[in-house]
Amino acid sequence: MKDIRQRSRIAVIGGSRPGRAALDAAFEVGRLIARAGAVLVCGGLGGVMEAACRGAREEGGLTIGILPGGAAADANPWVAVPIATGLGYTRNALVVMNADAVIAVDGEYGTLSEIAYGKIHGKKVVGLATWEVKGVETAATPEDAVRMALDGLRG
Amino acid sequence: MKDIRQRSRIAVIGGSRPGRAALDAAFEVGRLIARAGAVLVCGGLGGVMEAACRGAREEGGLTIGILPGGAAADANPWVAVPIATGLGYTRNALVVMNADAVIAVDGEYGTLSEIAYGKIHGKKVVGLATWEVKGVETAATPEDAVRMALDGLRG
Amino acid sequence: MKDIRQRSRIAVIGGSRPGRAALDAAFEVGRLIARAGAVLVCGGLGGVMEAACRGAREEGGLTIGILPGGAAADANPWVAVPIATGLGYTRNALVVMNADAVIAVDGEYGTLSEIAYGKIHGKKVVGLATWEVKGVETAATPEDAVRMALDGLRG
Amino acid sequence: MKDIRQRSRIAVIGGSRPGRAALDAAFEVGRLIARAGAVLVCGGLGGVMEAACRGAREEGGLTIGILPGGAAADANPWVAVPIATGLGYTRNALVVMNADAVIAVDGEYGTLSEIAYGKIHGKKVVGLATWEVKGVETAATPEDAVRMALDGLRG
Repeated sequence: MKDIRQRSRIAVIGGSRPGRAALDAAFEVGRLIARAGAVLVCGGLGGVMEAACRGAREEGGLTIGILPGGAAADANPWVAVPIATGLGYTRNALVVMNADAVIAVDGEYGTLSEIAYGKIHGKKVVGLATWEVKGVETAATPEDAVRMALDGLRG
Repeated sequence: MKDIRQRSRIAVIGGSRPGRAALDAAFEVGRLIARAGAVLVCGGLGGVMEAACRGAREEGGLTIGILPGGAAADANPWVAVPIATGLGYTRNALVVMNADAVIAVDGEYGTLSEIAYGKIHGKKVVGLATWEVKGVETAATPEDAVRMALDGLRG
Repeated sequence: MKDIRQRSRIAVIGGSRPGRAALDAAFEVGRLIARAGAVLVCGGLGGVMEAACRGAREEGGLTIGILPGGAAADANPWVAVPIATGLGYTRNALVVMNADAVIAVDGEYGTLSEIAYGKIHGKKVVGLATWEVKGVETAATPEDAVRMALDGLRG
Repeated sequence: MKDIRQRSRIAVIGGSRPGRAALDAAFEVGRLIARAGAVLVCGGLGGVMEAACRGAREEGGLTIGILPGGAAADANPWVAVPIATGLGYTRNALVVMNADAVIAVDGEYGTLSEIAYGKIHGKKVVGLATWEVKGVETAATPEDAVRMALDGLRG
C-alpha cells in the first residue's frame, strides 16, 4: 500500500439524515474510493458520512473525519482518524480543504456550504443527486462519481 | 440613536469584482439599511462589500467588517469597525453568524458559501440578482431587499 | 471624537472569576482606556472582561466583545459591539489580534493563552497582577498599565 | 497493532528553531511514543515537530500534523497524516485538542499558547526544558516525559 501522503484524498460530503437511496450510494462511493487506493475525508458524523466511511473501511481503506466538536469520540465508528476542531459548522471549510476532489451525495445547506468551499479552494466537485450548482459535474452513479473525482489525480 | 445592541444587524454579502449594476444596487442597499437604523455587517473587503459600506456611511450608519486576514487595516475605508480573524475564507461563516438577516447581491462561490451558512444558522436570506437557492427569498430591487430583510426584525 | 479606525485599540484580558481587587483594577483600566480615547477589545464575557467594559462605558468609551459562542446576546451588558465567533476558546487568538496592545489583569490559563498570542502577533503586552511571562511588561497600578499600553501608540 | 481509535494520542509541541539538545530530545520523545504504541500529534512543521515525527516514524509509528496553512504539502516529510486548517497560528488550539496528553519540548510563545490550551482543555501537560507554568509537570529526560504523559492513559 502506498504511503498515505502519496494517495489521493477524496472528500465525501452529504447530509446527516438522508434517505435509503442516498445511504446506499454513499456506501458504494466509499467502497470505490478505498478500492482505488484513495483516502476518504469527511465531516466524521452520521448519515452520508457514516455510510461512506463504512464502505471504505469494509474495503480496508483509510477514513479521516474532521469533526465540528471538540471530542474525537464523537466520530462515527468507521472513522479511523478523527480530528476534533471545536469550530462547529465552520469546520465545513476544513473538510474540503483536505481533499483533492469532492463528491457530494444528497445533502442540505451544510453540503451546499461544502460544495461552495470546494469551488473556492479550486477543487473538482462531483455531485450525485445533490444541489445543482454551476461548476459542479453531475454523476449518474457511484461508479461515475468516483471515476470522475479521481480522473486527473494520481490515483 | 438606539444603542447598537438594540439595532438589527443586516449582513450584505456579494462578490469582490461585481459589475456596475451590482455595485449600484449594493450602494443603495447600504443606504437603506442605515436609513432604517440597522447595522451593516459584511466581509470588509472590496466590491459589493465596499459599495454597501459606502452607502451606509453616507447615511451615518454603522458598518462592521469581518475580515479574512489578520490586519484591521485591510478593511475598505467605509468599514467603521474592522474585525480581523486570520481565518481566510473560513471567516465567511462568521459574517452571517453576526447578522439577524442576510442580503446577497451578485457574487460567486464565496457568496454561495455565505448564503448556505445563513440558512445553516437559521437566518432569513434575501437574494438580489444572485444565486438561486431553495429557501432564499428573491427581491427585485434594493428597496424590496431591505424591506424583506427587516420584516419581522425589531428595526 | 476621532473616527473609530483612527483610535488605538487596547485588549483587556483576564479571568471570568477574579477576586474583588482584580475586578476593581479591571474597572479602572477600562475607565482609563476610554478616557484616553482608545477602543477597548475583550472576550465579551464576565469577570475582568465585564468590569473593564463597564468602566469604559461609564466614560463613554467604545467596547468590542469577541465571543466564544455563536450568539451576540451572550455578551455582557457593557459590550457595545458583540462579535460572535462560534470558535469556543479558540477565539482567544482573535481577541488580541484585534488590539494594538494588551493589558492582562489576573487570569487563569485562558489569559495565559491570550498573553502568548499577544506575543506571537507582536503586540505589546502589559501585566497587572497576572502571569509572569518573559517579554510581558509588569505594571503596578491601572494607571501604569494603561500608560504603558498606550505608550508609542497613536492615542 | 491496535486500531488507531484505541491508541492514546500524545501531542508533542515545541519551537521550529530549537537547538541541538532540544532536537535530540524531541527525536527521542517521538521514538518512545511510537514504541509505546501511541499516536503522535503535532503542528506538522519543522524543528521539534519534525524531529519528533522522524523519531516516531523510524519506530513505525503514526504521526498526525495539524498545519497552520491550507496545503497538506507544507507538512514535514515525517508527517503521515497532514491536516490543513488555513487558521494560521490559531490552529495551535486544535493541536492539543486532539491529544490525550501533551509533551512540550523547548519552544517560544507558540509553545506557551499550546501549553495554555492543553490546560484549558484539561489535558495532562508535561514539560521538558520548556516554559515553567503552574500545573505543568516537569520531566528530566525524554523517557520520563513519555512515561509521565502515558501514565493513566490506556497505552
